[in-house]
Amino acid sequence: MSQIENRTFDEIQIGETASIEHTITRRDIDLFGIVSGDVNPAHFDEEYAASGMFGKTIAHGMLSGALISTVLGMHLPGPGTIYLSQSLRFRRPVYIGDTLTVSATVTEKKADKKRVVLDCACVNQDGDTVTVGTAEVIAPTEKIIRPRTHLPDVQFVDAS
Amino acid sequence: MSQIENRTFDEIQIGETASIEHTITRRDIDLFGIVSGDVNPAHFDEEYAASGMFGKTIAHGMLSGALISTVLGMHLPGPGTIYLSQSLRFRRPVYIGDTLTVSATVTEKKADKKRVVLDCACVNQDGDTVTVGTAEVIAPTEKIIRPRTHLPDVQFVDAS
Repeated sequence: MSQIENRTFDEIQIGETASIEHTITRRDIDLFGIVSGDVNPAHFDEEYAASGMFGKTIAHGMLSGALISTVLGMHLPGPGTIYLSQSLRFRRPVYIGDTLTVSATVTEKKADKKRVVLDCACVNQDGDTVTVGTAEVIAPTEKIIRPRTHLPDVQFVDAS
Repeated sequence: MSQIENRTFDEIQIGETASIEHTITRRDIDLFGIVSGDVNPAHFDEEYAASGMFGKTIAHGMLSGALISTVLGMHLPGPGTIYLSQSLRFRRPVYIGDTLTVSATVTEKKADKKRVVLDCACVNQDGDTVTVGTAEVIAPTEKIIRPRTHLPDVQFVDAS
């Protein structure tokens, strides 16, 4: 996919859905820890996590939130979207190796202010809903098609 | 800070607050783009952003959410916290160079299920509130003091 294209307010249909699939890796959790500063042992310390209620390290809850925001920013509505609000309910833990289907489904359109409400969910490979929420955005009124940004890769470097 | 220590449910007081300060960099946005997959041009394409409503590239809204979750996971209540829910309202854009004060303040304790409700906010260097929300967590009942995890640094590598 070399281009990114939005869905305008007028194009968007109630019931329309978009989704991405993402398998959670140790690298994801490490990067999320670096960018957020959240190095809570629940996410990094296997010895600590082994004795806790989840039995092993888990992904940051807000990583699910980040993936939901990606569906909105990249696909539905995509470029030109103004993110107004998001609710998130973290129902179940997300483990390394889990494959999440992250979706957003349009439930409401408010024509006067071009606002769109979407039900959002992250569902794992077992069909369990791990995170749910509702987003409200201002949808773009103009079609936007742009070359897709390609970010560099990252390598971990021992800080010592 | 070589150790990380939590606040137990019994220690936590209504009105208690914790905060971190973080200055947003291009590197933060690049890393958030890599970990989330959100390469919306609003965050990466200066030419595109120059003609948009914010005039320049902005940080992902959910980066504010990530910083809020860091206050909860690292400080209040800290290790042992179970994250139940988070609401977020993105009131203003966050630009590169903005210094955010990210805080969580306890507004309610529910003794039966050890739940704690916190008002959360990100305020920029001009005193403008950019993001607000409410979190609900299960607070830890046991004191946890652990060595702080030190993550490696990352270097960007051209993927071509």
